[in-house]
Order: sequence, then structure tokens, then C-alpha cells
Amino acid sequence: MPDAYYLQLTEQLRYLITQHATQWEGKLPAERALAERFSTTRVTLRQALAQLEGEGLIHRSNRRGWFISPARLVYDPTRDAGFNDYVRAQGRQPRTAVLMLETRPHLAAARALELADDQPFHHIRRRRYVDDRAVLVESLWVVPECAPELLDIYSGQSLWGLLRERWGHHLANRSIRMVSEALSPLDAEELLVAPGTAGLNICRAIFDDQQRPIEFDEEHWLHDSLCISVDLSGQQ
Amino acid sequence: MPDAYYLQLTEQLRYLITQHATQWEGKLPAERALAERFSTTRVTLRQALAQLEGEGLIHRSNRRGWFISPARLVYDPTRDAGFNDYVRAQGRQPRTAVLMLETRPHLAAARALELADDQPFHHIRRRRYVDDRAVLVESLWVVPECAPELLDIYSGQSLWGLLRERWGHHLANRSIRMVSEALSPLDAEELLVAPGTAGLNICRAIFDDQQRPIEFDEEHWLHDSLCISVDLSGQQ
Repeated sequence: MPDAYYLQLTEQLRYLITQHATQWEGKLPAERALAERFSTTRVTLRQALAQLEGEGLIHRSNRRGWFISPARLVYDPTRDAGFNDYVRAQGRQPRTAVLMLETRPHLAAARALELADDQPFHHIRRRRYVDDRAVLVESLWVVPECAPELLDIYSGQSLWGLLRERWGHHLANRSIRMVSEALSPLDAEELLVAPGTAGLNICRAIFDDQQRPIEFDEEHWLHDSLCISVDLSGQQ
Repeated sequence: MPDAYYLQLTEQLRYLITQHATQWEGKLPAERALAERFSTTRVTLRQALAQLEGEGLIHRSNRRGWFISPARLVYDPTRDAGFNDYVRAQGRQPRTAVLMLETRPHLAAARALELADDQPFHHIRRRRYVDDRAVLVESLWVVPECAPELLDIYSGQSLWGLLRERWGHHLANRSIRMVSEALSPLDAEELLVAPGTAGLNICRAIFDDQQRPIEFDEEHWLHDSLCISVDLSGQQ
């Protein structure tokens, strides 16, 4: 068992951070100053800071010290809102950058949409931001017949909005799968963090109201940027 | 961008592992043998292995080499099944070990159940296994008035079953919150992994059909042991 003092220090730090978040403008005092305030060693202090980092309350920035992480975005997979809508509904500012547009096969998309292994897809790779912090990178794999000239006109707008308004698709059935992961070198580089940083992988296979396959979506989120939330009522 | 060869090697390894899982009985050949088979260096091989470890396909065991991770347990938060039920339904064997029983206040539980900060709870700490692999540790915080002699009789059985059958509670409304995390020293030690290993934290606040607070549940899962899955139908 870890020693009780370290756990107690973690609690005190958590309290201090939530109380002083505004006053400190998002940046923690230097480790030396914190160690003095709690009359503890840098080693013990760092154990406690690592604990709070693991929970997503604070994060390190290269040589610039410890920062208080912005509040997690809340995502409810049982609701239909798109990224732009739920980010704005939480008083935050969404932004999207397009990283790549191409057409090629992708096995995971073919399997999830129950298509042949060599089925080509329109692939959109994009990075999304909340209040100018990059929080996710994602690959969208769209069945080309559903949106033939997609890659010519796509510039970062809502894909679902486009599919509905331009091509008349009614996205109806979704199968969503979420797993924790360590970010791969590619995803980590695109999110500007170290490879192996904890991440959250969300995949969605989307069909229309006739059960025709439309799109497969692979998202990689920074682990401290998202909270998945589901509220349920109903007798057990 | 990582070099194309490393990504190609990752794909080849993924294929090899899924093809040979049974023949290899869950353990990968030595790194030296794998490097020879693909005519590559140990450095490049380890990059590819680390990628597959991040995805949860394989894991390292102290000095004993690389092992193929068991299939993830699938958990659907919109369904009502308890751990024992959904583990058995997937052809796996559940087991529960009780680590601690005590009564004390817990701020996170009080806040989630909308009770006073100093509200005491019956606390059950338990570790749960799937096919004899420890996959999660959890703390259950039960309002004592709902189950007065709980700590005298509890020995690892289903808590929800007990609350229903012995005390007549109908668990009705749940608020579920899931975040990726790095496992804390305490949780990691109880799961027999290194602190900072990627984990998945699931919290549930549970109320009865009269909206009375019953229980708060904090779970810490090994990141490669669980897949959260939700299937939705409905016009967007």
C-alpha cells in the first residue's frame, strides 16, 4: 500500500488546485514552492502530482511546468448531437483542421460496415480543437457511392450535415465502441503529445434508415479532454 | 510522420498474431525470432510491438516476454446486466475478491449522491477477475440506512442482487461517467501492474425509483480488458 502521507497530500493538492484555479490562471506554482508550502520533499510531491495527472486534473507542458487541465468536454453517446453542437452547448469554441483527403481501402472500415475487404473509401483525416487546444484526431471513411464528389468540396464542415443536406442521407443506426488506449506514434504526433500518452479511442459504424452502410469513424482523444456520460432511467 | 516500414510491420504483426493466437498458446515468439522472421532490427520491431500494446492486442509480463491479451470484455452501459451476468453471457468466468470493508465518509460519493459532505458510507473494496485475470478494482459506497448490516454479511456476492432481495430496493436511475486515466499507485498495485498504466475509470451514481440515493460505485479497469459498446437506432 502507498503511504498514507502521499494520499493525504494528493487530497490537499486537489483541494488547493480547485480553490486557486482562477487566481493561478491555469498554471501551478513551481514544484519548489509547493514542496515548501506542504513541508514535503520533491519526490513525495511529484508522486502526488503524478496521481492528479493520471486523473486528468493537471498536465505537464515541456519544461514550462504544471498546468491545470481545462474542464473535460462531456459526450453522451446516446444523444445525436455532432461535435460542433455539443462543444458550443457547453460554452466552448470548436474548430476543425483538415489534415488529409484521399481514396483508399481500409480493412477496419470494411469489416465494421460489412463490405468487401478491398472496398475503397473516401478518407478524411482531421484534427479537432476545443478552445484552441487540439483534443482529438480522427479518420472518417465514407462509402464513395454515398458522397461521390466529397473530397472536392470538403473543407472542415460537419460531415453529417453535408451527407444529409447535399446527398439526402438519413443517418439512422450507429454502433459505437469505446476503448482506452495508449496513443500511437502517428496519433500522438498529430496531437502534439508523447507517444504512449493515454488516449480514448471511439469508433462508430453508421448506417442509413435502410440499413445501408454510410460511414466509419475512428477518433483518438487526449485522455484528459473527454468524459463520457450516460443518464439512464428504468426499473432494474 | 513515422516511417512507412514501421506501419507496414505493425500490420503484418497484427495479422500474424491473430492467425497464430491458438498455435502460440497466448505467448509471442521471442523478439529475436520475430526480428529475424521480418528481417528487421529489434528497435523497429519494438516500435511495432509498442503500437500493438497501446491498442491492447498484446501485453508484456515482467521479463517473461510478450503475451496475447485475452479478448476484451464487452460492456453496454445502456443495459442493466451486472458483472457476473455479462461476463458469463460472454462465455467467461467471473470471480470477486473482497479487499476491505469499512464505514467512513467519502466526498466524491457524497457529491454524486447529493448528500452532505460528512455523510458516512459502507465502503466495500473489491477486485474482480475474468478467467482468473484481475481486470478491475472498485470501491462501492452504500448509504448505510439502505443496507444497515451490509458489512457483516458481505462476502463477494452481487451487491445489486443483495440490495434488491434483502432490502427490497429497486435500483432505477443511474448516472454513469467514464474517463480514461493513468492508474494511481494504489489501484495499480491492487491490479498487479505498474503505476501510470492506462486505465478506464467508470463511476455510477445509483438512485431508487423514488429518486432516493442508494450507492456510488468507482471502478478502475485495466485499459486492455474492456470495450464499451452501445448500439443505437433512431432517425437523426
